[in-house]
Amino acid sequence: MDLGGTKIQAAVVDRDGSVVATHRTQTDVEGGPSKAVADIVRCVHACAPDLSGIGAVGVGVAGQVDADSGVVRSAPNLGWRDFPLGDRLETVLGIPVVVENDVRAIAWGVWRHGAGRDIDDLIVMFVGTGVGGGIVSSGQLLTGDRGVAGELGHSTLVADGRLCTCGRRGCLEAYAGGWAIAARAREAIEADPAAGQAMLDAAGKGPVTAVVVSQAAADGDPLATELLEETGRYLGAAAVGLVHALNPRRIVLGGGVVDGNPFLVDAVAAAVKADAIPIFADRLDVRQSQLGPQAGVIGSASLARRRLAQGAAETGR
Amino acid sequence: MDLGGTKIQAAVVDRDGSVVATHRTQTDVEGGPSKAVADIVRCVHACAPDLSGIGAVGVGVAGQVDADSGVVRSAPNLGWRDFPLGDRLETVLGIPVVVENDVRAIAWGVWRHGAGRDIDDLIVMFVGTGVGGGIVSSGQLLTGDRGVAGELGHSTLVADGRLCTCGRRGCLEAYAGGWAIAARAREAIEADPAAGQAMLDAAGKGPVTAVVVSQAAADGDPLATELLEETGRYLGAAAVGLVHALNPRRIVLGGGVVDGNPFLVDAVAAAVKADAIPIFADRLDVRQSQLGPQAGVIGSASLARRRLAQGAAETGR
Repeated sequence: MDLGGTKIQAAVVDRDGSVVATHRTQTDVEGGPSKAVADIVRCVHACAPDLSGIGAVGVGVAGQVDADSGVVRSAPNLGWRDFPLGDRLETVLGIPVVVENDVRAIAWGVWRHGAGRDIDDLIVMFVGTGVGGGIVSSGQLLTGDRGVAGELGHSTLVADGRLCTCGRRGCLEAYAGGWAIAARAREAIEADPAAGQAMLDAAGKGPVTAVVVSQAAADGDPLATELLEETGRYLGAAAVGLVHALNPRRIVLGGGVVDGNPFLVDAVAAAVKADAIPIFADRLDVRQSQLGPQAGVIGSASLARRRLAQGAAETGR
Repeated sequence: MDLGGTKIQAAVVDRDGSVVATHRTQTDVEGGPSKAVADIVRCVHACAPDLSGIGAVGVGVAGQVDADSGVVRSAPNLGWRDFPLGDRLETVLGIPVVVENDVRAIAWGVWRHGAGRDIDDLIVMFVGTGVGGGIVSSGQLLTGDRGVAGELGHSTLVADGRLCTCGRRGCLEAYAGGWAIAARAREAIEADPAAGQAMLDAAGKGPVTAVVVSQAAADGDPLATELLEETGRYLGAAAVGLVHALNPRRIVLGGGVVDGNPFLVDAVAAAVKADAIPIFADRLDVRQSQLGPQAGVIGSASLARRRLAQGAAETGR
């Protein structure tokens, strides 16, 4: 399962990380957690009418998750706080349920089945509306003290810089997240309406969003192009700092903003080559996630499979 | 052993992390690696005339180290590149030698014997002339792909900001390292010589250094105080970003700049409480290293002891 503020997606994923069946529905944020549980169950049954062949369900949630207890601590896009999603779903479905932060689940999927599958030191950074991540170090997905490690969108990019949705100033997400690209675009248009006309035209009657910026840049608009090149420099500067802290073998980038602007992968690679200390940069490469929009469900399923295997090992089954 | 650009220190450290004997000498940087090897051997014999009771030697080096091979890849303060320090010392001493980056060794010592000994998720940040660090996550000291993880001084603080000695702009060290505090002080004095008079007086005929700034601040000088408070805000902003990436249970701060200005510990703690996402901040605490100037030798010895134990386990001894 991939549970976000706009959609709920279910998929049956096999041992190799291939999607066998999938079903999706819009998220009814107004309906709250109980409606979401009902919708998740409906999606599960839609792609797996008979649960007897399903070992476990993994759910990736856009928010902070206590993976041990299956409790969603805080999911701003859903409006949830401290909801015991794992327990609720296990009660209804009757099979083990694993809940994890969506991008941490993606990081797991990238490592097991995607662009990081042959290495053991990996930073995964997904840039969509927000920016999330996951870190694999010496073959361990880092969890941290409370299981919430990997919030790379809220690593420091410019001390005391732009205001972020988390309330702090200067987070990477406040520069490179989709919402921030849109905000920077609107500021640039306000500062120079003539230069911003192409983006306003692309937006039509809607707001200028990150997708609009990408479209205008693809059509050759200079201001939109500059905004995205700037985004590449921001992602690059953040990546170099993370590289020095963590010394990964590879950085894998994904999410809507990257998938819509794949040159951002090259921008980050160039920044690392130019700016990271040589021993950190020599063997490092930067790649685009190969899992596309299925990254969420593949990652969640893969995490659930691992938890099952761990449980079997621990109980001797 | 603690090997830096100014001093070489040897110590005999027992199982509990207590220093039993110690000996130090000035580093002869001009003499190059061969002179350093001779000086290290002399220091070892000075505090342990009979090596039969010594299980192994750990050497913490201020630079980038390939811990697996014992090769010092790059040590700018010593002027070394690609020197096989471990092999050379083993040949002369006839006992196992472990070589590691000095601050990573300190991080290990802090975790085994210092302010982090009761927990398993830890960021150690030492602020001296430079800024170095080490990360323990779920009970593993992170090494990364090449064994050089933990260069927290070169994590990003201000994208495209002040120039760092590493050649990049905007590293934490370029704001909060001792050399950067001195540079910021000199700039502030140049901008307002009257306000800087107390620091110039404290410096006497010597240059304005970070120690001079600390002295002037201790004497109540407003500009020096502001420079150090600013340093606290920089360290705090960097710490919040690292907290979001790694979700530690504790941050331990040490090194000359922190030991000379212990209020920096409170400044970082305040920044984390104010700015980190609640689930990251709730249980996190910030402490000063308890190992003082012996942190280096205690950490190196403790790492060497661990490597011996690993070797014994692997060979069944």
